[in-house]
Amino acid sequence: MIKVAIINGPNLNLLGKRQPEIYGSTTFDEYLEKLKADFEDLDLSYYQSNVEGELVTAIQDYGFSHDYIVINAAAYTHTSIAIADAVAAVPATCIGLHISNIYKREEERHVDLLAKYCKACLFGFGIEGYALALRAITQGDV
Amino acid sequence: MIKVAIINGPNLNLLGKRQPEIYGSTTFDEYLEKLKADFEDLDLSYYQSNVEGELVTAIQDYGFSHDYIVINAAAYTHTSIAIADAVAAVPATCIGLHISNIYKREEERHVDLLAKYCKACLFGFGIEGYALALRAITQGDV
Amino acid sequence: MIKVAIINGPNLNLLGKRQPEIYGSTTFDEYLEKLKADFEDLDLSYYQSNVEGELVTAIQDYGFSHDYIVINAAAYTHTSIAIADAVAAVPATCIGLHISNIYKREEERHVDLLAKYCKACLFGFGIEGYALALRAITQGDV
Amino acid sequence: MIKVAIINGPNLNLLGKRQPEIYGSTTFDEYLEKLKADFEDLDLSYYQSNVEGELVTAIQDYGFSHDYIVINAAAYTHTSIAIADAVAAVPATCIGLHISNIYKREEERHVDLLAKYCKACLFGFGIEGYALALRAITQGDV
Amino acid sequence: MIKVAIINGPNLNLLGKRQPEIYGSTTFDEYLEKLKADFEDLDLSYYQSNVEGELVTAIQDYGFSHDYIVINAAAYTHTSIAIADAVAAVPATCIGLHISNIYKREEERHVDLLAKYCKACLFGFGIEGYALALRAITQGDV
Amino acid sequence: MIKVAIINGPNLNLLGKRQPEIYGSTTFDEYLEKLKADFEDLDLSYYQSNVEGELVTAIQDYGFSHDYIVINAAAYTHTSIAIADAVAAVPATCIGLHISNIYKREEERHVDLLAKYCKACLFGFGIEGYALALRAITQGDV
Amino acid sequence: MIKVAIINGPNLNLLGKRQPEIYGSTTFDEYLEKLKADFEDLDLSYYQSNVEGELVTAIQDYGFSHDYIVINAAAYTHTSIAIADAVAAVPATCIGLHISNIYKREEERHVDLLAKYCKACLFGFGIEGYALALRAITQGDV
Amino acid sequence: MIKVAIINGPNLNLLGKRQPEIYGSTTFDEYLEKLKADFEDLDLSYYQSNVEGELVTAIQDYGFSHDYIVINAAAYTHTSIAIADAVAAVPATCIGLHISNIYKREEERHVDLLAKYCKACLFGFGIEGYALALRAITQGDV
Amino acid sequence: MIKVAIINGPNLNLLGKRQPEIYGSTTFDEYLEKLKADFEDLDLSYYQSNVEGELVTAIQDYGFSHDYIVINAAAYTHTSIAIADAVAAVPATCIGLHISNIYKREEERHVDLLAKYCKACLFGFGIEGYALALRAITQGDV
Amino acid sequence: MIKVAIINGPNLNLLGKRQPEIYGSTTFDEYLEKLKADFEDLDLSYYQSNVEGELVTAIQDYGFSHDYIVINAAAYTHTSIAIADAVAAVPATCIGLHISNIYKREEERHVDLLAKYCKACLFGFGIEGYALALRAITQGDV
Amino acid sequence: MIKVAIINGPNLNLLGKRQPEIYGSTTFDEYLEKLKADFEDLDLSYYQSNVEGELVTAIQDYGFSHDYIVINAAAYTHTSIAIADAVAAVPATCIGLHISNIYKREEERHVDLLAKYCKACLFGFGIEGYALALRAITQGDV
Amino acid sequence: MIKVAIINGPNLNLLGKRQPEIYGSTTFDEYLEKLKADFEDLDLSYYQSNVEGELVTAIQDYGFSHDYIVINAAAYTHTSIAIADAVAAVPATCIGLHISNIYKREEERHVDLLAKYCKACLFGFGIEGYALALRAITQGDV
Repeated sequence: MIKVAIINGPNLNLLGKRQPEIYGSTTFDEYLEKLKADFEDLDLSYYQSNVEGELVTAIQDYGFSHDYIVINAAAYTHTSIAIADAVAAVPATCIGLHISNIYKREEERHVDLLAKYCKACLFGFGIEGYALALRAITQGDV
Repeated sequence: MIKVAIINGPNLNLLGKRQPEIYGSTTFDEYLEKLKADFEDLDLSYYQSNVEGELVTAIQDYGFSHDYIVINAAAYTHTSIAIADAVAAVPATCIGLHISNIYKREEERHVDLLAKYCKACLFGFGIEGYALALRAITQGDV
Repeated sequence: MIKVAIINGPNLNLLGKRQPEIYGSTTFDEYLEKLKADFEDLDLSYYQSNVEGELVTAIQDYGFSHDYIVINAAAYTHTSIAIADAVAAVPATCIGLHISNIYKREEERHVDLLAKYCKACLFGFGIEGYALALRAITQGDV
Repeated sequence: MIKVAIINGPNLNLLGKRQPEIYGSTTFDEYLEKLKADFEDLDLSYYQSNVEGELVTAIQDYGFSHDYIVINAAAYTHTSIAIADAVAAVPATCIGLHISNIYKREEERHVDLLAKYCKACLFGFGIEGYALALRAITQGDV
Repeated sequence: MIKVAIINGPNLNLLGKRQPEIYGSTTFDEYLEKLKADFEDLDLSYYQSNVEGELVTAIQDYGFSHDYIVINAAAYTHTSIAIADAVAAVPATCIGLHISNIYKREEERHVDLLAKYCKACLFGFGIEGYALALRAITQGDV
Repeated sequence: MIKVAIINGPNLNLLGKRQPEIYGSTTFDEYLEKLKADFEDLDLSYYQSNVEGELVTAIQDYGFSHDYIVINAAAYTHTSIAIADAVAAVPATCIGLHISNIYKREEERHVDLLAKYCKACLFGFGIEGYALALRAITQGDV
Repeated sequence: MIKVAIINGPNLNLLGKRQPEIYGSTTFDEYLEKLKADFEDLDLSYYQSNVEGELVTAIQDYGFSHDYIVINAAAYTHTSIAIADAVAAVPATCIGLHISNIYKREEERHVDLLAKYCKACLFGFGIEGYALALRAITQGDV
Repeated sequence: MIKVAIINGPNLNLLGKRQPEIYGSTTFDEYLEKLKADFEDLDLSYYQSNVEGELVTAIQDYGFSHDYIVINAAAYTHTSIAIADAVAAVPATCIGLHISNIYKREEERHVDLLAKYCKACLFGFGIEGYALALRAITQGDV
Repeated sequence: MIKVAIINGPNLNLLGKRQPEIYGSTTFDEYLEKLKADFEDLDLSYYQSNVEGELVTAIQDYGFSHDYIVINAAAYTHTSIAIADAVAAVPATCIGLHISNIYKREEERHVDLLAKYCKACLFGFGIEGYALALRAITQGDV
Repeated sequence: MIKVAIINGPNLNLLGKRQPEIYGSTTFDEYLEKLKADFEDLDLSYYQSNVEGELVTAIQDYGFSHDYIVINAAAYTHTSIAIADAVAAVPATCIGLHISNIYKREEERHVDLLAKYCKACLFGFGIEGYALALRAITQGDV
Repeated sequence: MIKVAIINGPNLNLLGKRQPEIYGSTTFDEYLEKLKADFEDLDLSYYQSNVEGELVTAIQDYGFSHDYIVINAAAYTHTSIAIADAVAAVPATCIGLHISNIYKREEERHVDLLAKYCKACLFGFGIEGYALALRAITQGDV
Repeated sequence: MIKVAIINGPNLNLLGKRQPEIYGSTTFDEYLEKLKADFEDLDLSYYQSNVEGELVTAIQDYGFSHDYIVINAAAYTHTSIAIADAVAAVPATCIGLHISNIYKREEERHVDLLAKYCKACLFGFGIEGYALALRAITQGDV
């Protein structure tokens, strides 16, 4: 059974609470249940933290024990070499993900320090991007 | 039936011929047959050109008659405002795609002039990225 | 009789079709008829292409046989040294034109690679900018 | 009757005195008489100052009482946010104008801080640019 | 017999017609005849286009069937990653060439996007640079 | 009763201990007592952390339960998009504050990533800047 | 009695006249009366000019005779080293002020050439920022 | 007895586990035992964290109680002003250290925000750099 | 008799009043008397203004009636293209002068927009730089 | 008889000694003998130095007495304005040469300060580039 | 016996003569005697020159005959690609060294062109940095 | 008697030989004789070298034994931190000098690395700049 960890970065704990008119009113925990139901053949873990260094530790922990990490580092995407180093250090295959299309936002958000250490990336698919990443994994696309 | 056009840019006609040890020996035409078989519920069109302006015209043509465009502008991704304008002008939903992870390549290939006009983007999934994009469409992820 | 060629670049074939609430519902062909009627003392030619190199060829062709070129290179304005070279190479007097005020748009559209090879430029007058350019020619202002 | 103010910036009081072999020997006052004769249906005012802040004040004064301002801010075009603010603040429609083609000059003169607040701009038509701007106004092109 | 293709980019079709006082009055076709006479031991092909994408296609075509390409991409040298990709993709040895010394020209012409994919480059030798490149080939210098 | 949270970032726990000849020998806790006495009509909370992600969490917590946040992110001001995102996400009105005049310091400290998401900012008033911010709140200036 | 001069830069004479829906319909003169009433213990002077050099002179005049200057240089904030020099030259304590949050505006307005010579700065408090600055002075915060 | 704290930043907990063919199979804990044995005349403490703010706190704690800090901030070296502030705030003498030669790595790793606040730095000596730093301390070189 | 105008820019009216411990207690007027006594064979004029545009006008006035202008534009040196234009427009030979060594000051003061239009420049000689410039004129060095 | 000087810059004395697997085991002295044999109709001189200023002197010496200089300034190509000045000062025609393709190397080696003063340049032909340059001279290509 | 060459660059011959209050009154020659006494098991050579090219030559000479070079290129560190090339060319292991902490100095001294070709570097240890480098060698740390 | 050394940098040995139509036909040696005659009260030395490091040595030698150095480093002005270091190290007062107005030349010649270490500078006075510098010394202007 393929083991996949979804790791979410800062402020993503607000999903479903912040700006529901944009992001909907589903929290990530609720969405996670749906993902688990839809991808029963995957062993799915989840971790979220607002703390950069805790994300580093999580990537280390899951990265040696899981096959894939789907990482949405949120704002740390643009500033964290430490997280990028963790992604580079672990044997798991990492997929970078952003909910919004970062190119439609301010220029400081166009920088993606993790991307070059990820195997592949996707952004702009909204919250369904996570499902799409899992689909890529189950289909062997990555 | 959802109408989707895949549009490929310069040098992608060499797929399956150039560097088969990396890209495999399947040509895009062969791969397209496989896509059509796998996504029977999609009305799938395909267009490739090495000429920037012909790609502009194709985006205009398909963009008014199709629901989605999956666009891999290859090198023009990094230099063409004209193609970006065409993407912005048409009502079709556009998904940007790169076969390789552009962040693993030279810095001039990190610039993506089309991305902000696309709904969503994905890269680094190899040739299966096209299948993944179609999956996103059929699943209503985009 | 003064010979003038109007040369339009990529996506300008969509005028009157794209975003009519902004650009009106007159196509450039219809507008051209009006121009011809208003400027009967000018020998007026028209050429449009989405292909950069075809615009190069057109500037060469008209540039040796006509007195003036009114050139709206659209997106190629910001990226094409090839078109700039053609403008520099021909004996015709070239007037650069943009329909919109490019300074109200994104920064990558503030670069104008053709301007220094044109005799004069104007932008922001909407589609009537073409009429204004012709008026400058008939009045001997340029 | 349409009210138009022409506002000229620093060193333009030297027109017709400085480098007559280039700019001709007509002073702007003489040229203004010609403009008034040619555009009898316009209520034409004129103001020139070498002082940035006096130009700000003039734009404020004319900008609330006139329909159009034709502004040639000369060197202040490239350095004055204060004048740009004044242009942005007044209800009059502003047309930016340069006598020479600024793109043929040094790079520090390619910056145009006023342009984005003007409705439209033109440059490179020599002193006849003013006539062309008035023609645009009388023809309703702007 | 060594097969060599000379590929010329935009505006080079004007050689011998444009600015004869500088470039001489020999057209490239006439010069090509001279080259063929001087290098009888080479199988010499020639292609010119103003269209970037057609140059991509030509490099692909000649690049798989010929031993050498002498490529003068003219203005596309400074802007085309698509042509650079084609040069990188083909097995032929490519030699980059400019007629003028690009370092004596404007700064935007100092950028050479093709050079790193060529085996070697030369510029500033005027039209005789082509002869020099062929000499390098026949002498085994490259 | 208006609820205000003061949130201090890294190294501000050293106030009153570090360089007392400059910052005085009052710790922030002592100063906080004074603030509470001076602003009895405000419900005043206080939080300090050296950890970026804990500051994100605190802004989320206070930002949904309090009316105002006075945020001095110290060094994270210049590097943290994550904190900026938190400021942007919460309904509380945020006032940015620096004890010193950041423009008198090194250039990397002139960047303020939070400012654009704050309602207003002040800096250079020393430790009394906090009192001034509270005064602005009680007076309805912000 | 503490002597304070408020000095306003270009276009601030339009306050209460320009865009009343945003800035309210109170002119600065009316607001000044309110300030004088609220701060009876301050000897309050006021000066406004659109002319950079007149602001230099005013800062010199008030800066040697007053204890504080509250300076809102408006657009000259971003371009005037001359005003910055005047601020640096006088013994009065200077407080920089902007009505709007300059970080919410265009990038050329993020540069503040005066700030490093001021004792302290505040921005984004709207017109009440002046009251806040005076409060800081009367409270001895600066 | 001289008190020295070695503080290691993010991902350095993986030493001896990650890429043993490069970094060897000794963990830092094992190496620390060796250091303690080799430098018996030093009172040696050790701290590691992946969390930037915890490193700030550790530098504060050790920086007031120890004579020297040997700090290898790893990825935070390139991004953390907060850690740099802590180094600047404490009375301990700080020595910056990198295991690899950062100049042989990507350009974003050439920036060292801590160096100017350290007394001295060394890099490229591999894990023995720590021993070298301790040697410098025991020899009174720093 | 050679006619020379000395033109001083903003804040130079404070000489002898501001920071006398550095600049001495001689005002420029007193120094001017000394210059007139020392250079009796020169017809010496003097003008000072804090207003950029008045300096433009002065350069125009003196520049057509005098042989030389010694111009110390102070802060406008670094920001004024308008003054540079005036210097370029007049037939008088202009010598640029700074009292201090601008390279010992902040980087924004290293830019000298006037220098390229002056015949020669000198800086760092303190107030005696004016005498040195006049000496160059009387000796025919410039 | 045409007089040609070959001038080699720093570290080129190591040719044939350093990295023979790349550069071959022929020293430049041996290669020079071959060149002299192959180009008997040229009067060939040779000079090498590691010292920038000695290269300046050599260019001066040969540049007034010889017809051509073939200059490979090696590392000084990227940093020496002094050598560029010497090239510009002498009447000899200079040809710039690099053994390797500098565009395949690090970015700091893409800058060529000499090129604009040379008549023509070539690079990437390996050591046979010298022969090619001589061939250009004997054939009258330059 | 391990052979080590210490090579010092420009102005380092002034050590002990220039600013003795900072650098002490020991000349490098005197210090060298002390080093030789302290490291009797090393075969120690010394070379100093102010001439960039002579340093290139020395690195070549010592670099093929010695095991280690300790190189303090002083000002050439920041400007010399020629010395960097020499370091890269020789088989000796090179250690870069600066007496002062270059990050505490002006920005143009933060660039280190040699570092990436050295095995390791150290700076800020004052003159004892040389002893530290030798200690690293004798201990086998590098 | 005041001791002054004039030190000239690369290519200045060509004065009077190179481009006599511009620089005149007087060599510097001849001009030096004139200087010695005109300034009999100065003890005048002269040194010229094309070698950067020899200039460093000369500045060291003269800088400890003479009162003033007049330094024209020519091209090294723009590239040499080593010469700047020497200027900074010696007790002599240094005056920087350029014969031409460097601001009228290419942008890479606007950088002056020595200026901030000189007491004063002058440029654009042609060869008489040396006389002017000596006059400043004899008059006590510097």
